Amino acid sequence: MRILVVNVNTTASMTRAIGDSARSAASPGTEIVELTPRFGAESCEGNFESYLAALAVMDAVQRYEGPYDAVIQAGYGEHGREGLQELLEVPVVDITEAAASTAMFLGHRYSVVTTLDRTVPLIEDRLKLAGLDARCASVRASGLGVLELESDPERAVAAIAGQSRLAVEQDKAEVICLGCGGMAELEEAVAAATGVPIVDGVRSAVGIAESLVRMGLKTSKVRTYAPPRPKQVTGWPFAVD
Amino acid sequence: MRILVVNVNTTASMTRAIGDSARSAASPGTEIVELTPRFGAESCEGNFESYLAALAVMDAVQRYEGPYDAVIQAGYGEHGREGLQELLEVPVVDITEAAASTAMFLGHRYSVVTTLDRTVPLIEDRLKLAGLDARCASVRASGLGVLELESDPERAVAAIAGQSRLAVEQDKAEVICLGCGGMAELEEAVAAATGVPIVDGVRSAVGIAESLVRMGLKTSKVRTYAPPRPKQVTGWPFAVD
Amino acid sequence: MRILVVNVNTTASMTRAIGDSARSAASPGTEIVELTPRFGAESCEGNFESYLAALAVMDAVQRYEGPYDAVIQAGYGEHGREGLQELLEVPVVDITEAAASTAMFLGHRYSVVTTLDRTVPLIEDRLKLAGLDARCASVRASGLGVLELESDPERAVAAIAGQSRLAVEQDKAEVICLGCGGMAELEEAVAAATGVPIVDGVRSAVGIAESLVRMGLKTSKVRTYAPPRPKQVTGWPFAVD
Amino acid sequence: MRILVVNVNTTASMTRAIGDSARSAASPGTEIVELTPRFGAESCEGNFESYLAALAVMDAVQRYEGPYDAVIQAGYGEHGREGLQELLEVPVVDITEAAASTAMFLGHRYSVVTTLDRTVPLIEDRLKLAGLDARCASVRASGLGVLELESDPERAVAAIAGQSRLAVEQDKAEVICLGCGGMAELEEAVAAATGVPIVDGVRSAVGIAESLVRMGLKTSKVRTYAPPRPKQVTGWPFAVD
Amino acid sequence: MRILVVNVNTTASMTRAIGDSARSAASPGTEIVELTPRFGAESCEGNFESYLAALAVMDAVQRYEGPYDAVIQAGYGEHGREGLQELLEVPVVDITEAAASTAMFLGHRYSVVTTLDRTVPLIEDRLKLAGLDARCASVRASGLGVLELESDPERAVAAIAGQSRLAVEQDKAEVICLGCGGMAELEEAVAAATGVPIVDGVRSAVGIAESLVRMGLKTSKVRTYAPPRPKQVTGWPFAVD
Amino acid sequence: MRILVVNVNTTASMTRAIGDSARSAASPGTEIVELTPRFGAESCEGNFESYLAALAVMDAVQRYEGPYDAVIQAGYGEHGREGLQELLEVPVVDITEAAASTAMFLGHRYSVVTTLDRTVPLIEDRLKLAGLDARCASVRASGLGVLELESDPERAVAAIAGQSRLAVEQDKAEVICLGCGGMAELEEAVAAATGVPIVDGVRSAVGIAESLVRMGLKTSKVRTYAPPRPKQVTGWPFAVD
Repeated sequence: MRILVVNVNTTASMTRAIGDSARSAASPGTEIVELTPRFGAESCEGNFESYLAALAVMDAVQRYEGPYDAVIQAGYGEHGREGLQELLEVPVVDITEAAASTAMFLGHRYSVVTTLDRTVPLIEDRLKLAGLDARCASVRASGLGVLELESDPERAVAAIAGQSRLAVEQDKAEVICLGCGGMAELEEAVAAATGVPIVDGVRSAVGIAESLVRMGLKTSKVRTYAPPRPKQVTGWPFAVD
Repeated sequence: MRILVVNVNTTASMTRAIGDSARSAASPGTEIVELTPRFGAESCEGNFESYLAALAVMDAVQRYEGPYDAVIQAGYGEHGREGLQELLEVPVVDITEAAASTAMFLGHRYSVVTTLDRTVPLIEDRLKLAGLDARCASVRASGLGVLELESDPERAVAAIAGQSRLAVEQDKAEVICLGCGGMAELEEAVAAATGVPIVDGVRSAVGIAESLVRMGLKTSKVRTYAPPRPKQVTGWPFAVD
Repeated sequence: MRILVVNVNTTASMTRAIGDSARSAASPGTEIVELTPRFGAESCEGNFESYLAALAVMDAVQRYEGPYDAVIQAGYGEHGREGLQELLEVPVVDITEAAASTAMFLGHRYSVVTTLDRTVPLIEDRLKLAGLDARCASVRASGLGVLELESDPERAVAAIAGQSRLAVEQDKAEVICLGCGGMAELEEAVAAATGVPIVDGVRSAVGIAESLVRMGLKTSKVRTYAPPRPKQVTGWPFAVD
Repeated sequence: MRILVVNVNTTASMTRAIGDSARSAASPGTEIVELTPRFGAESCEGNFESYLAALAVMDAVQRYEGPYDAVIQAGYGEHGREGLQELLEVPVVDITEAAASTAMFLGHRYSVVTTLDRTVPLIEDRLKLAGLDARCASVRASGLGVLELESDPERAVAAIAGQSRLAVEQDKAEVICLGCGGMAELEEAVAAATGVPIVDGVRSAVGIAESLVRMGLKTSKVRTYAPPRPKQVTGWPFAVD
Repeated sequence: MRILVVNVNTTASMTRAIGDSARSAASPGTEIVELTPRFGAESCEGNFESYLAALAVMDAVQRYEGPYDAVIQAGYGEHGREGLQELLEVPVVDITEAAASTAMFLGHRYSVVTTLDRTVPLIEDRLKLAGLDARCASVRASGLGVLELESDPERAVAAIAGQSRLAVEQDKAEVICLGCGGMAELEEAVAAATGVPIVDGVRSAVGIAESLVRMGLKTSKVRTYAPPRPKQVTGWPFAVD
Repeated sequence: MRILVVNVNTTASMTRAIGDSARSAASPGTEIVELTPRFGAESCEGNFESYLAALAVMDAVQRYEGPYDAVIQAGYGEHGREGLQELLEVPVVDITEAAASTAMFLGHRYSVVTTLDRTVPLIEDRLKLAGLDARCASVRASGLGVLELESDPERAVAAIAGQSRLAVEQDKAEVICLGCGGMAELEEAVAAATGVPIVDGVRSAVGIAESLVRMGLKTSKVRTYAPPRPKQVTGWPFAVD
């Protein structure tokens, strides 16, 4: 089976990291194809950038020409998953929801440790809409921007491990979700520092997508995610450059 | 003061209707400027179209050259308000929230009567995120598409009044919100048919925007709606032709 | 249009301050008439006093002889709004709800900073019943009594600004509501000290009331706020001397 | 021990019925003293009347001269319990809460069957504030006014049993609370008609009050129900003649 | 009337303490019979032990040969109450729910102070399912195991009083529930140290059970707690030797 | 990898069906070992039977001698998963949660269609505790007992398809979860009859368990699911014969 893993920002090195992470979790026989959006921000750290990403992901998937069996939207707390579900029949898995859903099998409460404080409300809102917030102990910010995670991994581990420990001790989290598409490489170090299971969204999403495909399950088309009605749409897909 | 009222779809006649409706509610001295997006769908009835609208509204506001004091996003249940709040300092009022917030001053519970059944979950999700759902008795669909409201007003009144009566009798709503930017003209007829206050989102939003401006209040910039960080953004604004 | 603004306590200087504050937010053409109850406590800081205020406000409005278009109940967290809505057809706006409703247009979460700790649960309960609590970050007490706000404005500003800063930093509030009818004069100083929008209930309520009146909206009479049934009522209005 | 059971309306025959009902549930050694308010409505069926009742009950208790060990406020869905708790040290038990609290020991979900539809939101609000609503299946109205329960008991039983059956069959209630102070006599007939436990508020409240007194428990005075601060209060107690 | 009070662990001295505590709260004419399970753990401090206790309590009650009028399950936060309700017609009162329900009559919010931190989620879950969590300020752990409460009462009082004070000061609790079947003897000392009402579960449960019995109320049998259907059950009751 | 799939009742033919269903969803290289409890009821349709099952599943797993990588508890709405998590380090997946969690990736809201009406509250409670209830549209009963599903598959399909259609049309479910361990064979027929995705708990659980194992994730041991403390436990494991 082939799974498209779509980055939400335009930074190619992050796409590669996300693709590698997805591959590390895939079963034999699963092909991971990672995609970088044609437009949008070099990192998503707020609503404007996230709305751009929403359409950029839809655009990237629609331009992909080969067949595929499932799509993973690899941004933490981003907008857009519902639109993609309207456009496609194959399952769409958002990594924010994949991580939360996975964490809930491993402990009574989980926390998310993410990048900047300003993205915390976006993640909280996504979890609330997804109905996955009841067992969320907290969403905490490490204070590092998305691209700093890549450029300074040592500082990233320290900051994320620190917030994770606070989540466990003060907020009573029993599992930590890494709240960014590009954090998978930190998994081991944070696990060692905290003693609790660490869940990466991309890797979790791969397992969930594979399982949905194996069971032959597709997005329900009876109401919310029915295909758009035939009508005049101007300017889409966007002419970029 | 000048308030921009931005339609979420590309249908110019709806923009005019929305503008007229806004003007009918404005105080002396308030200038209403209505804007039509450069791109997007001719009507918004689902998530894909709504995400397009989110960016189309931001695009329309950013291209507007004159000064203005507040912005009204005139789509019911649409995405995007949070992005606009990041980009602007002046208050941004979404008509879904304006209507709900207004209805709550008039009765114990309110219902929304909207267009197609498929848009009900979008509206429910917007109300939930806005924290305005606790006193929502129901969101009901009339079964008419957005453009049918314009083309067949008689049928529109009958369908909306019918669902409004059910909302009052079965769901115990005491106030009805008209769940579409283009329904303001139906207000009187639906009020006559149901005997309860009928709230139009655009007109409510004008009063709220005027009041915020008069008090000198602006969007908080300390966290969620801080301006986007300086970074590389590709393809924005979109080249549309 | 004429709006009655009714103080909930019997302190005439607070009534004047509330009236002045209301006038400062009113549109041209709006007449503000402030009323002081005939009975009740010199300040409302608890349930017994608040229940007295509930009836005192109804009494004051019923004794007012001229015509009027809307009523503002100018007490923070007080009982009684629902009773007034039964007795009147014109809109009734409670300042607790007006402030919360306004704050929610300006930031992701808001806090209320009020007087004494013992009034915090009253405000929390009012927000819960109003369905406006989902985005309330916290209700904090300054530790100053209602009348101390008037008598020692400097200390009041310091105490309220202090708690507001804690609300922003610790509770992640992005907007502060001044949780007392008599705090409007502190607005500017607290805004300067915190960098977030400060919402005053009385001023917000004026804008909301004006807007409702302009749209011709009145309290729904189909269920909760239907007029009292004709029946024998003993002792009302109270003989006070 | 002596328990004051205070009617919320001025109808003496209802006070007697309430007193008799309380006595039927009391342990040996418990003296029930029933009180009728000096002022207020002959029946409470809405917010204005309920606010009057709130103060009328406080007034009645304060005028009672003998010692007593607990107070029961015998109105369903009425305002005022929090005020009484401020004024007294002995336990105060509201029958709305006593009935709900009792019903929750007997079945998974309970419904309340009350008098007029307009009182349903009052009861729902009281249960919500009391934090006893999570297992409430529904609040249903029989359509009979408070005084009709007394004057036409046969019709009352039929109407209440009918709604109770609907609550069991449609709303999945497993226990029914009789939603009015004056319904205790209907208990047996409704139980026979429905096959589920029927809980009367007054009788439940007696057991709870006795138990609190026996354990030596009193209202907490550290915050919400601290005694009113010393201050000038005008017009209280009301001069009624 | 006779009430069975069933310990959830196999420690006979705790059974005696629970029985004595129950007797201290019983009315004249109420006979308390305390039972110790035939199997299970010497103390319940987690889910496995609690599931054992669930069946051990059912077993103990089913083996009891005399008549009885109500059953109290005397474990804090334990599983099993719903099973017992299926097997019996007489009322079943769980002390976790009895304490919470009682505390809610005495203050605006309550906290539970229990033994080990690991049992906190069990108690929170029980309160959530019981629908009694809305006014729970916190569940706090003293850090002492169940059996340490007995063996070192002085340390127990200090630890529990310390957490109770934090619950009052930081979590704004106005009432404290002692979160263990064996804490009744600490009641007085903790009350003295905190100045708020202290509620013991066993003693509360006795009052509630007596009251239910006096009113002739039994567990509803129409749905959730209907008797088990006739079917083949293997191995029950367990052969324990 | 080897996954234990444990039936909750003692009916061997159901164990076989569950095992076959699990195998149909497993990846190459996954070995499914199905286990039947030594004790308990021939079908679980209530709390008493479910509590027996809780311990019977723990017993079955503890008696299994070979190594294994994950455990699936194959009962819908049953107690016990938390106990098993304490006893084991490998992941434990409950099919009620697996199905709900899976359904939420496929549609906006899901319903569960189960066996008897009396089991509905058990399932609702399990979903509530799991924090997976926010997007549950309804839990509906087909009216058929667990064993009737096996004995009369045609009637089972008709009853379940009928309730599923009602769930879609009236409750607005977009996905249906089959609410019983033994329903997997009905999947296709119900899907054909309803046009929405049908989720089977056992099959979903296999995918989730495989994914957790592949990622190397285990149950968090820091708090709720820490191993039982060393202490005296009487009678366990049960002597059954």
